[in-house]
Amino acid sequence: MLKNKDESRTPLSEFGEFGLIDHLTKHFEIKHETTVKGIGDDAAIVQEDRQLVVTTDLLVEGVHFDLSYMPLKHLGYKAVVVNLSDVYAMNAEAKQITVSIAVSNRFPVEALEELYAGIKTACDIYKVDLIGGDTTSSMTGLIISVTAIGSVAAEEVVLRSGAQANDLLVVTGDIGAAYMGLQVLEREKEVYKVNPNMQPDLEEYTYLLERQLKPEARKDIRELLKALEVKPTAMIDVSDGLSSEILHLCKQSQVGCNLYEVKLPLDPQFISVCEEFEVDSTTMALNGGEDYELLFTISTSDFDKIKGNPNLTVVGHMTPENEGVHLITRANTKIPIVARGWNAFNKEEDQE
Amino acid sequence: MLKNKDESRTPLSEFGEFGLIDHLTKHFEIKHETTVKGIGDDAAIVQEDRQLVVTTDLLVEGVHFDLSYMPLKHLGYKAVVVNLSDVYAMNAEAKQITVSIAVSNRFPVEALEELYAGIKTACDIYKVDLIGGDTTSSMTGLIISVTAIGSVAAEEVVLRSGAQANDLLVVTGDIGAAYMGLQVLEREKEVYKVNPNMQPDLEEYTYLLERQLKPEARKDIRELLKALEVKPTAMIDVSDGLSSEILHLCKQSQVGCNLYEVKLPLDPQFISVCEEFEVDSTTMALNGGEDYELLFTISTSDFDKIKGNPNLTVVGHMTPENEGVHLITRANTKIPIVARGWNAFNKEEDQE
Repeated sequence: MLKNKDESRTPLSEFGEFGLIDHLTKHFEIKHETTVKGIGDDAAIVQEDRQLVVTTDLLVEGVHFDLSYMPLKHLGYKAVVVNLSDVYAMNAEAKQITVSIAVSNRFPVEALEELYAGIKTACDIYKVDLIGGDTTSSMTGLIISVTAIGSVAAEEVVLRSGAQANDLLVVTGDIGAAYMGLQVLEREKEVYKVNPNMQPDLEEYTYLLERQLKPEARKDIRELLKALEVKPTAMIDVSDGLSSEILHLCKQSQVGCNLYEVKLPLDPQFISVCEEFEVDSTTMALNGGEDYELLFTISTSDFDKIKGNPNLTVVGHMTPENEGVHLITRANTKIPIVARGWNAFNKEEDQE
Repeated sequence: MLKNKDESRTPLSEFGEFGLIDHLTKHFEIKHETTVKGIGDDAAIVQEDRQLVVTTDLLVEGVHFDLSYMPLKHLGYKAVVVNLSDVYAMNAEAKQITVSIAVSNRFPVEALEELYAGIKTACDIYKVDLIGGDTTSSMTGLIISVTAIGSVAAEEVVLRSGAQANDLLVVTGDIGAAYMGLQVLEREKEVYKVNPNMQPDLEEYTYLLERQLKPEARKDIRELLKALEVKPTAMIDVSDGLSSEILHLCKQSQVGCNLYEVKLPLDPQFISVCEEFEVDSTTMALNGGEDYELLFTISTSDFDKIKGNPNLTVVGHMTPENEGVHLITRANTKIPIVARGWNAFNKEEDQE
């Protein structure tokens, strides 16, 4: 589909590097006063009184995304969102991004226009400025590198390392759905390979597919917590799977954790698809990844402030480090939590 | 050479993503007080009173480098240097970098250790902090994405857009050598393919090869100009070829330019290799690229301050925009300068 056989499509070489960047970014507007200079010089300029947070992610075709079911517009959107999620996990406000892409010549200009349409939508919705990037060719496939910059008052920063024993462990939204969305897409791809004329009916998977193809970062949580007058003691975003993120928090805060299976916030659609796929929903929720929810710890004294909020679920509590990191199952057995999150170097790794 | 057939080499999957980052970056030290938090959280934290400049570059195996003659340690060094060059071109001080890499499984851990050894050497020599990054797998080859951050007082920033008619055009160091170094390496690669036992004698090309394999960014120029009390009116780094950079300066400053062929600073080794390859040295100097020198304009009233400095060569002067952008040849003819710099989307493009 993306091969440039159609003569009406514009080959990338028509523009050259600088012409292409100009073409793709000409509709982007600068929204923040702190963005002094955007695209168009040797470097962008940012002026910020507060602390800056900086995070970067690399997305590789065939490793992180599959263009046979990922529309380019969604991919552009997602590439931005996954980086903003890291900014929000510092309790910071996302302000600027740079986007570099490497593409093979099989992509026509129109494909990159789609990608940048998604990037622009994310910039508009999350109110961030595109301030720079690089556009080059690749030998095979598409590679996207995004760096996101945010700002935060020094006293508001939340690290991974501040959790204390007895703190409550809280997760936003629900988890596992993005991973099961991916499983549905992979299954449909196999079906399509066998019978390309079959039109899949994916209506019952809408939520799962949206979580996989168009994830949102929790920009709202920073504001919600401010309104509730709660400052988390530690925070991380859920990108590699809940179990992996809990282990990061515990390691960096030098605490243990009890996570309660019964408390895991799971969407009904997620549960029913786990049944359909005959996989254990707890295992999928713990190890799935790509939820882009926030996981944080709060002092027990803040419990009343968050209690009953539909965005927030207390899923466990921290313990002294020597008590270890455990899942307390429905049957009240204690199972050690081990990292089985997604490992880009070992894709065939058993996820169960 | 890089295939992981040797059992004594460590496959990447042994570490996992987080273990690998920890392993590769454990010897890096934080040098700047403004780096509040480096690697190890969702994002790094930078606190800076001055303006920040941000620049990013993507290097792709087979497009930007060839591992058959580029040692990984040099590649790591160069990947950092090319980004710092953009920071210096803003008249800023480089402070922090993030480095993301995507590698296929053919690379053993030891190869990445080499790459990071080069990155560390550059960080130490240029005094920058490695504050983040991402490490993932690729379908083929190695991709390196570097984002560099620098700081500069608002009144010291130099953009591309400030040149005025009559300003003098100045270039640092000499130009063209990196490109001819690449030609020598490409020739030797062809020789090697025919006869792998032949040992090339590259002694007479030492300078050219160093310019290609281990370029340096002009960190010193900012300090030199400060000492000379000269503030350029516009500045850019020479990465895509002198002619391409002159056109950028002219376009963004809305001026024209007369560049004098006789003034071009060329190394004797560069001239003799151009003769050996039977190519025109002026053409190579104008269109070669990868020099990582700085090109800037100064007011004529500053001429006495820079006159005779061995680092700086006045190569031309700016004109009103309607006079165009020209090379004044030795024969005193006027030839329009057109962009023939390196275009990653059109590698087979004629470079002459």
